[in-house]
Amino acid sequence: MSTSSKRNSLKTIGEFGLIRQLTHQWPASSPEIVKGIGDDAAILKARKGQQLLISTDVCIEGVHFDLAYQTPKDVGWRAGVANLSDIAAMGGTPLYLLVSMGVPVRVPPQNVRALYRGLKDACGPCNVALIGGDTSSSPSQIFLSLTIVGSVRANRALTRNRAEVGDRLYVTGTVGDSNAGLRLLQTHSNHLRRFRPSAVERFLIRRHVRPTPRVHVGQLLVDRKLAHAAIDLSDGLSSDLGHVCEDSQVGAEIQGKALPLSSQLRAFARRNNLNPVELALQGGEDYELLFTAPVQHHQKVLHVSRQTKVPISCIGEIKPKIFGQQLELPEGRKQKLANTSFHHFSHR
Amino acid sequence: MSTSSKRNSLKTIGEFGLIRQLTHQWPASSPEIVKGIGDDAAILKARKGQQLLISTDVCIEGVHFDLAYQTPKDVGWRAGVANLSDIAAMGGTPLYLLVSMGVPVRVPPQNVRALYRGLKDACGPCNVALIGGDTSSSPSQIFLSLTIVGSVRANRALTRNRAEVGDRLYVTGTVGDSNAGLRLLQTHSNHLRRFRPSAVERFLIRRHVRPTPRVHVGQLLVDRKLAHAAIDLSDGLSSDLGHVCEDSQVGAEIQGKALPLSSQLRAFARRNNLNPVELALQGGEDYELLFTAPVQHHQKVLHVSRQTKVPISCIGEIKPKIFGQQLELPEGRKQKLANTSFHHFSHR
Repeated sequence: MSTSSKRNSLKTIGEFGLIRQLTHQWPASSPEIVKGIGDDAAILKARKGQQLLISTDVCIEGVHFDLAYQTPKDVGWRAGVANLSDIAAMGGTPLYLLVSMGVPVRVPPQNVRALYRGLKDACGPCNVALIGGDTSSSPSQIFLSLTIVGSVRANRALTRNRAEVGDRLYVTGTVGDSNAGLRLLQTHSNHLRRFRPSAVERFLIRRHVRPTPRVHVGQLLVDRKLAHAAIDLSDGLSSDLGHVCEDSQVGAEIQGKALPLSSQLRAFARRNNLNPVELALQGGEDYELLFTAPVQHHQKVLHVSRQTKVPISCIGEIKPKIFGQQLELPEGRKQKLANTSFHHFSHR
Repeated sequence: MSTSSKRNSLKTIGEFGLIRQLTHQWPASSPEIVKGIGDDAAILKARKGQQLLISTDVCIEGVHFDLAYQTPKDVGWRAGVANLSDIAAMGGTPLYLLVSMGVPVRVPPQNVRALYRGLKDACGPCNVALIGGDTSSSPSQIFLSLTIVGSVRANRALTRNRAEVGDRLYVTGTVGDSNAGLRLLQTHSNHLRRFRPSAVERFLIRRHVRPTPRVHVGQLLVDRKLAHAAIDLSDGLSSDLGHVCEDSQVGAEIQGKALPLSSQLRAFARRNNLNPVELALQGGEDYELLFTAPVQHHQKVLHVSRQTKVPISCIGEIKPKIFGQQLELPEGRKQKLANTSFHHFSHR
């Protein structure tokens, strides 16, 4: 190891040096932050008439991401979005982030900085402030754990357990793209430098590595009291719908032909002899919002879509519990919706 | 692998099964928890006249703990105390915990449950509620990341940056025991089953594996407006004092003979030809409180000690910055206090 690279290694910079480098470019500033980074705990003022939202997510190298086909910046972006999306799914405003990291000493500091930059870029549009964290070495994998704090008007948060029979079922954006993008990256991981993706492939990969949290949509649903229940699509549409149905004690019917599939996903499915509806139902990590709203709010929901410029599609209806969760196929036949959840202990 | 052990493996139980098992025995209940575990985020009411405290800590197998000489329950306890202690150091009341974990599939589920039990036991006396978390597999090490939320009366939190020249410097309990306990465990890690510790050794090991967070002391210091600045001893007395001095722009003098050393630590030092004062200054993870208070509050500080039954010792004084950080040795000689911080990137 040369002296200059040694001087920049994590071992030489040390924990405090690294934290200083990382937080320097991400100052915490908000009248509600009494004390940000640099004490035993951050101190925050509560907002009047608001309730607090708090959520945490882990992200482990070799389980949630693979640097063979993702850049450190991608990893940071996606981890940030996973957290922002949890607040979006409650209809809240993301405010503060705490970042805990375990990093092997072999990892070049510029990679850690790039990861942080991705995280910061993802949080930028929402003005989320970094208020704390903990950094340590790790024996073999990069380990990332984020905690996000948000706020929402008191008693207005969108939970999973308020869906009502007769509600319409909506989803933002398009679904399944992230799944297809991940498959492309995995297929080409051994020769990624020589991989020249087509425009279709570039779109799908982009949807995987740079998902968008639907924060504004969630906020408008809360402000206008439009939705009964909401969840974000992290495990996959069929599995996340399962969570809503279980918690709300209801069933649901999805119209296969109503699913918002991008033309790129359809092209990918055609080329690979895959069923695009299945890709959409099973694919995780779209970070779109799935929500239910009473029929009479339909026009107002479409107005939210126009205002935010985010497509919102009605994909089905909430049914009584006994109905279970069914998919109406394009040809009219109905089938039980397979619950193919993304289990982190059995999946990979 | 037999069918029955297979049935109980993490792979078979799955992420959701494990979370259910773990959270089942730790229900979240408080009028301020609108929604605990089981949605995209927890929803909390803010307490009137209070500010929020939030802190996060990572704990990685092979860096922060070693199952060769610690039980999973110890690991959970210690991780919980590290977090509670951060709130104690702010003079706050710990309220909620979020637990993120990465666990290799090789780890028997009963070990994960034991770790959780240790965590829960540590949090029990403070009535801390589990309100969220994320569980995943991990390729090789157990990775734990805790986020703790507490509250404190508005504008009363004890920070590191308010120490004033002339303040007395206090520490709770005894210092250095945890360091000695860790050394004992490490020395005997290869033959731990045959290791029959003496009463002295048992005491020191116990101090390492079952530290006590000084929550009540911190709360009384805030309630009675006694202290100017506080920090908990996680990196080690000399290093944590360094943080206070740096943030408060002051110096400090410690009286070596005033350091509260247990008779067990002295016996251990004698037997191993070590300097007990050095063990106390450098040893990390005591989770005692170090705080500064104006001279006129001395009697009231001693009253807090009597009331909480936690020893509190005056160990020195805050000096002007130019003084630096000095140690007065028992024989009267003064020396510069070495800053031997515990750096997680260079230490092990």
